Amino acid sequence: MEKNNRREFIKTVGVGAAAVGAGIAASAVPAMAKKEKTFRWKMCTTWPPHFPMLGESADKIAQWVDEMSGGRLKIEVYGGGELVPAMGTFDAVSQGTVEMGHAASYYWAGKVPAAQFFAAVPFGFNAQSINAWILSGGGMELWEEVYSKFNIKPFLAGNTGAQMGGWFNKEINSMEDFKGLKMRIPGLAGKVLAKAGGSAILMAGGDIYTNLERGVIDATEWVGPFHDLKLGFYKAAKYYYYPGWHEFGTAFECMINKDAWNLLPDDLKAIVEAATYKSNIWMLSEFEAKNNAALRELVDVHKVQLKEFPKPVIKEMRKLSQEVLEEQAASDPMFKKVYDAFLAFQKNIYGWNKLSEEPYQELKKL
Amino acid sequence: MEKNNRREFIKTVGVGAAAVGAGIAASAVPAMAKKEKTFRWKMCTTWPPHFPMLGESADKIAQWVDEMSGGRLKIEVYGGGELVPAMGTFDAVSQGTVEMGHAASYYWAGKVPAAQFFAAVPFGFNAQSINAWILSGGGMELWEEVYSKFNIKPFLAGNTGAQMGGWFNKEINSMEDFKGLKMRIPGLAGKVLAKAGGSAILMAGGDIYTNLERGVIDATEWVGPFHDLKLGFYKAAKYYYYPGWHEFGTAFECMINKDAWNLLPDDLKAIVEAATYKSNIWMLSEFEAKNNAALRELVDVHKVQLKEFPKPVIKEMRKLSQEVLEEQAASDPMFKKVYDAFLAFQKNIYGWNKLSEEPYQELKKL
Repeated sequence: MEKNNRREFIKTVGVGAAAVGAGIAASAVPAMAKKEKTFRWKMCTTWPPHFPMLGESADKIAQWVDEMSGGRLKIEVYGGGELVPAMGTFDAVSQGTVEMGHAASYYWAGKVPAAQFFAAVPFGFNAQSINAWILSGGGMELWEEVYSKFNIKPFLAGNTGAQMGGWFNKEINSMEDFKGLKMRIPGLAGKVLAKAGGSAILMAGGDIYTNLERGVIDATEWVGPFHDLKLGFYKAAKYYYYPGWHEFGTAFECMINKDAWNLLPDDLKAIVEAATYKSNIWMLSEFEAKNNAALRELVDVHKVQLKEFPKPVIKEMRKLSQEVLEEQAASDPMFKKVYDAFLAFQKNIYGWNKLSEEPYQELKKL
Repeated sequence: MEKNNRREFIKTVGVGAAAVGAGIAASAVPAMAKKEKTFRWKMCTTWPPHFPMLGESADKIAQWVDEMSGGRLKIEVYGGGELVPAMGTFDAVSQGTVEMGHAASYYWAGKVPAAQFFAAVPFGFNAQSINAWILSGGGMELWEEVYSKFNIKPFLAGNTGAQMGGWFNKEINSMEDFKGLKMRIPGLAGKVLAKAGGSAILMAGGDIYTNLERGVIDATEWVGPFHDLKLGFYKAAKYYYYPGWHEFGTAFECMINKDAWNLLPDDLKAIVEAATYKSNIWMLSEFEAKNNAALRELVDVHKVQLKEFPKPVIKEMRKLSQEVLEEQAASDPMFKKVYDAFLAFQKNIYGWNKLSEEPYQELKKL
């Protein structure tokens, strides 16, 4: 029922029911009022408003929930800074300032280091495997445990697929080339770079291009061809490297304040959950379908030089990544618990992928 | 509102509204009656009732729709043969005998050859790529066109991920070994085998094991470790081959009779669609999470010999597969139209996967 109709209806029924007798009306009207209750939620995001793919997917979740609920759950979506700062999203959801947040869980590394496994860690899962781990391999139970003390219920809500290794103004031919390299690369991957002798430089997204152009940094990672083309990095760097060893399939999250969640009737809970599943597959499919056209434009029109990190470099970076993860695990029991589960699932999925996805990807070489 | 409450409520309101005046009641009660209408649908499937993963996913779609709609759309699920024969599912949906069907579109190859692209063709897409093609790359529009004259609206509703190449009682070391090979392998893949000099033998699923054991056939394909373990093929064949060149990521479908679809209010349409998205990612994640444990049991407990098809064999089978697809395209304009779109998207996604998923899968070799 439309909201306006409902108001009209309640008015009508109110008078009518009184005329019939309180006994019967009491069993009927409250049941309806409960069922037809309309919820208005706020969703903060860590993205600029309507940011391609990421902000769009938050918008779509709100739209799908609206459609599925017949307007009974309205979610207003805010870009980062519109209601709270982008990086305040976690706290806003935790404290109930807003009911919902849309982000990537590795943004909360400073507060909840273990959360990073549910977005991306260096040499972590691709999209298909992180989905399998979280949805069917015990990952979600761990994620819920990690977030429970913050009064947040997490949902998996999107994935970029594999990202690129980044934009460089010098070639990377051996590990030596990382020595002294100033690169914008956040989180655990930044620690890996530091181990390799480089410097991970932090800066706001809006400053990256200028700093790269002026040589304040020698390199930066961002997302993949679709986004990187839009940001024009090809004008400030010569080489575009793959693979994105630090983010092979970055997952996004919907966080919901548990008190708000518990107030929802079961049908709306099911609707919100389904919207996150839909968003997950929608976003990945969009990235997969669109990345190559952007890549072609970068290479064919803008003459970007595509480069693959040499295999010995990848192998060494993986070793350094393991060291970084192990060091963090040694100082944080919850991080260790999730890391152990991550490693067990990695062994499991690698065993199967060896026979399935690996030969599929190798067809291109035949 | 629960159905029983609704009946009670309408009864109450009916009397009450009459006391208030027909003018106001007319604008309110019909609006509510429309909104609260309950639908009862039947879903036929091509699976044994509650068959692991496949039948289960049909059950889950019904359950999720029930939950999300607060019971306003109830879908009763039937196994193959319970209401109509399994292979009668398409016609039953087309003719409106049932509102919904759950199947794999390559089952309708005899009637709609082009439909096979939306499930699997030899050397076709993996799960991630068929999702990207259908959901974001124009595939869905073609699928809707292919099904429109049958009055069916298709949805993507699941995926097995990559399958295995099958169970063999002799080794496949070169193309010579396919000569005279009697294998249970249906559809286009059967035609590829025939081109290689073998014989594709058709038989009901329940007869495969016995025929393999008695030597009526030399080989069979089925699904992957999770299902193949349950069927006990390891007791009747020595070698378990990979990769499943004929099915790298078989997609499943929900078919909906268009007249039934058009009767649904918008919220229920959105709910049904979201349930198919959820099912898609649920099924793939389950397969990915569970296949390796079954594989380990086959190898470690039942001493199955895992074998990889030699690369020259895979290369030649791919060439024969292209011939089979081209022959079919030459005689069927709609097949050609979909095949051309398939090839264009394959070029697109291979271009991107070369930099993304291929290096990810190769990490295991470093």
